[in-house]
Amino acid sequence: MFKLYEYSPSGNCYKVRLLLTQLNIAFDRTEINILQKQSRTPEFLVKNPNGRIPVLEIEPGKFLFESNAIMFYLSEKTEFFPSDRFERAQVMQWLFFEQYSHEPYIATSRFWISVLGKADEYKEALQQKQAPGYAALGVMEQHLEKNDFFVGDRYSIADIGLFAYTHVAGEGGFDLTGFPAIQSWIDRVKSQPRYIGITD
Amino acid sequence: MFKLYEYSPSGNCYKVRLLLTQLNIAFDRTEINILQKQSRTPEFLVKNPNGRIPVLEIEPGKFLFESNAIMFYLSEKTEFFPSDRFERAQVMQWLFFEQYSHEPYIATSRFWISVLGKADEYKEALQQKQAPGYAALGVMEQHLEKNDFFVGDRYSIADIGLFAYTHVAGEGGFDLTGFPAIQSWIDRVKSQPRYIGITD
Repeated sequence: MFKLYEYSPSGNCYKVRLLLTQLNIAFDRTEINILQKQSRTPEFLVKNPNGRIPVLEIEPGKFLFESNAIMFYLSEKTEFFPSDRFERAQVMQWLFFEQYSHEPYIATSRFWISVLGKADEYKEALQQKQAPGYAALGVMEQHLEKNDFFVGDRYSIADIGLFAYTHVAGEGGFDLTGFPAIQSWIDRVKSQPRYIGITD
Repeated sequence: MFKLYEYSPSGNCYKVRLLLTQLNIAFDRTEINILQKQSRTPEFLVKNPNGRIPVLEIEPGKFLFESNAIMFYLSEKTEFFPSDRFERAQVMQWLFFEQYSHEPYIATSRFWISVLGKADEYKEALQQKQAPGYAALGVMEQHLEKNDFFVGDRYSIADIGLFAYTHVAGEGGFDLTGFPAIQSWIDRVKSQPRYIGITD
């Protein structure tokens, strides 16, 4: 059985939980408290030398890290990953966009404000995250004004990847009021079969 | 014919040039001077709404962005991407590692120092990039002490992705002297058939 090493409030870990649940694949969970540096112990660094969660243990001793790579592993040849060559690459395009242009701003702000509870201490750094975070939301909004989902008019791991931190962007100090297409898309994602919430 | 929109000093663009050359695929190049904000014009934003290079035009009006997604598109079903399911995901794992834990530190430092020539102006920000940049190099070194390449003992787009900014890390103020396994791997990459340098 798959074993997921995760810190449950993390959106990156939630991506994997949501996909596994929607794929109807049973899995074990092991909580790694990153606030107590449990992802930096010698024992954990064997699982991921980069000291981050999530990690998926596929079989004893066989580990995969990076949330979007784990989703790729799990979804290939399922309905959550396209069969068309160009669409497959478009899924990857949006997942790399998520990790480079979205997560470092929106997820990091949420971590400081809502996980650590240190909005005051990080006040200046949070301010610097605002413009690039809103820029990423603007790119998403523009795409969703003309498309129901990110790739091929169908729910895929590109949507899961972007949904994870976007639907809780408010916890990072980002206001989605001005992004009606994103709000409609969030509702569409939440209405997918076997959907579970980030706190479920 | 493929058309690559690129800023040639960029390592992200070099990844695509190197792979296309090693695949023996002819392509046209269009230089986009990001210093003159040519990637933020209304005309360019049609190609990539995120305003970044590289962009690959696959056929007229059909665009793909994000360097690692472009490499995935080009390499699937070639010798540069594994056929084994777990190895395919491991390639993605290292490419996401590159974009999240390596590029924002090493590539950004190189950009400020060697492209913009503004080491003094960015002195404090450069200092903050040192520890996470060296941490990424440490993860690579540890892997390469036991492996000739990143995945499946064979040269793949995982190597191209990590090579692009690692082999010019010195231009970003990172010293590779303490990383002998990385140095040997750089030599192995440079000895691959049809290799071209970043300034070629």
